[in-house]
Order: sequence, then C-alpha cells, then structure tokens
Amino acid sequence: MAIRTTAPGRPRDPEVDRRIARAALDTFGELGWAGFAMEVVARRAGVGKASLYLRWSSKEALLTDALTTGLVRMNDVDTGTVRGDLVELATQMLDLYAGPSRGAAMRLALEAGSIPGIAENYAAMRTSQIQAARAIVRRGITRGELPAGTPVTLLLDTLIGGAMMHALSSPAFDTATYAGQLVDFLLGSPSHPFE
Amino acid sequence: MAIRTTAPGRPRDPEVDRRIARAALDTFGELGWAGFAMEVVARRAGVGKASLYLRWSSKEALLTDALTTGLVRMNDVDTGTVRGDLVELATQMLDLYAGPSRGAAMRLALEAGSIPGIAENYAAMRTSQIQAARAIVRRGITRGELPAGTPVTLLLDTLIGGAMMHALSSPAFDTATYAGQLVDFLLGSPSHPFE
Repeated sequence: MAIRTTAPGRPRDPEVDRRIARAALDTFGELGWAGFAMEVVARRAGVGKASLYLRWSSKEALLTDALTTGLVRMNDVDTGTVRGDLVELATQMLDLYAGPSRGAAMRLALEAGSIPGIAENYAAMRTSQIQAARAIVRRGITRGELPAGTPVTLLLDTLIGGAMMHALSSPAFDTATYAGQLVDFLLGSPSHPFE
Repeated sequence: MAIRTTAPGRPRDPEVDRRIARAALDTFGELGWAGFAMEVVARRAGVGKASLYLRWSSKEALLTDALTTGLVRMNDVDTGTVRGDLVELATQMLDLYAGPSRGAAMRLALEAGSIPGIAENYAAMRTSQIQAARAIVRRGITRGELPAGTPVTLLLDTLIGGAMMHALSSPAFDTATYAGQLVDFLLGSPSHPFE
C-alpha cells in the first residue's frame, strides 16, 4: 500500500515525518480532498513545499502514506484471548473517532470512493481490516472461547459501530472502562443484563 | 426548528417541494457546505433561483428544512412493544445510511458543528433524537419487557452504531431481516448465541 518514493540515501527525520503526517491528516479532515494541497500541508507542518515533493511524488502518495501510518492498525491485534482482542479493537475505534484523526477518518469514509489513487487503496485497507476482525472472532471460536454458532457479522457490526457511535456522541468518557463494558455486554458476560 | 419563510397566500406544490428537498440533500451530500449554493440546488431541482428565494430566505433555512423533513424521525416511534420500537429505530438507521440521503447524513455529522445557523439546530435535533431513543428503552423497562438494570447507553450505542456500520460496509442486505436479527442479538432473545 505504501507508494511513497523516497530520495535514495537521504536520511529521514522521524519527528519531521510525524509532523507532516499529522498536518496531512488535519488538512484532509478539515478541508477534504477538494482543499488538500501540498503547499497547505507544507505550511501547516512548517516545512518547505520542495522537501515534501522530495519525499512524496504526488498528493495522492502523501495522503495514502499519512492514512496508512495514522489510522487504525487492526491487523496487528493478537493478545491471546478473544476478549482481549475485542477490547483492543474497540479501543482503537474509540481512540480514532474521539481523537485528533476523527475528521480524517470521517472524510475518508465519505470521500474515499471518489478520490483517484485513494479509492483502490481504501478498498484494500477496508477489506484487510474486515478480514483481520473476522479472524479475531474465528480464533476465539477455534480456542473454544466462543460458541461455534457465533454470528460474526452481528458481533463485529455492534462492536465497531457501537464504539464509533459512542465516540461521536459522548462528550467525555474513559476509553478503557467503556471498551471493557462494551465487549462484556456483547459477549454476554456475567454482567450482561439480559441473561 | 423550521425557519422556512413562506410567502403568504402562495399555494405550494408538494411535488416541487420534494424535488427541492432531494436536490438540497444531494448537493450537500456531494459538495458539503462549501459547495452548497441556492443556484446549484435550483438547477438540480429544475426550478428558478428566484422561486427558491421566495420559499427560503437563505441557504441555511433551505438546508435546515431539507434536513428536518428528509432525515430520521426518531421522535414518532411508538409501536407498543420495545422490540417493535427498536426494530423501527434500526430500520430508520439502515435506510438512512444505505439510502439516497447517506451522503447528506455523513456530511452533517462531519460539518454540522462548523456551519453557522445549522450547528444549533443540529445539536437540538441530536438531543431530541437521543431523548426519544432513551424514552423507547425506558418505556420497555416500565412495561416489564426489559430488566430494570438495562444499560441504556450500551444498548443504544450498539443498536444505532451497529445499524450504521452494517449499512456502510455491506454491499447488499435485506433491511427487515437484518433489523430483526440485530435487535434479537442485542436483547438476548432465544436466538442469542451467548446465552
């Protein structure tokens, strides 16, 4: 997915890279693709436009890179238990939609399909995220932590959608507490009120 | 919430009103507030710009009106049972985010806070929707359909967020079937796999 073109042999400053990625996500979140321009990102990051072009050949490449490093990394989740994995997944969603990248994440969902050079990467990222999330539930079934008939789609829709909805509608909350309560509610743990 | 200013005595054609509301939601969904202009909506609806100004004094008034009539009407939900009410609520969310107003609904969540004249109306609409949804659950508790300790926030986060997530990520689905399964999953009915 990385289509960054780095000038060979040029040493990179991770702090500058982070600042540029942050500026790119903020710009995209505020202005959308229509307002996303290399010079706007450069100004916001406090670097020269030329040095941006030295690192990324186009604004499509810059945004793809910022999105890849800055948003959710569902693929890496593997804590050893299905409850741990689902809590981690909920935490990532809560952090994403309550944190500084919220605008970029929502813009992406809204606009990705119509941005040339981003649409395919976004579709691939979504597919890989969905597969990673389904793998978490299937591992739980294999380990005997969940019944074989667990409705994977319903469980993930309500977990991921519930975390997103809470982050978007609640003024303030404790992420770890809510993530645990959400997973216990959906898994029907002893605290589940409907059992 | 309606701030429409109608010229007195002027008969209105409901079909034209519907076409204008549709054009307003489509324009806002595609272009956001930055691209929302009376003449763009007029052209798309096939009416004169002057006749739009006869009905609405400003583009804020036009968009508010289109959003009020075109989006979710949670306040009217009262089927007599909590399951019926929650299925109706899920159906409204599925229709909204899988239907033609999806773009407008997502733009609204993203941009409402920063649009002058819309922000306050949006906040009031959200508050009234949340209160209506909570009232549905409380009626269910009062009627003895749900236990007294039902976690209202978790139930509504997962119901509304789950429906939204499903509509945004599934290519095709049967709304009535999914709405029923979603509610049964969350209420822990006989089909609940974790009981």
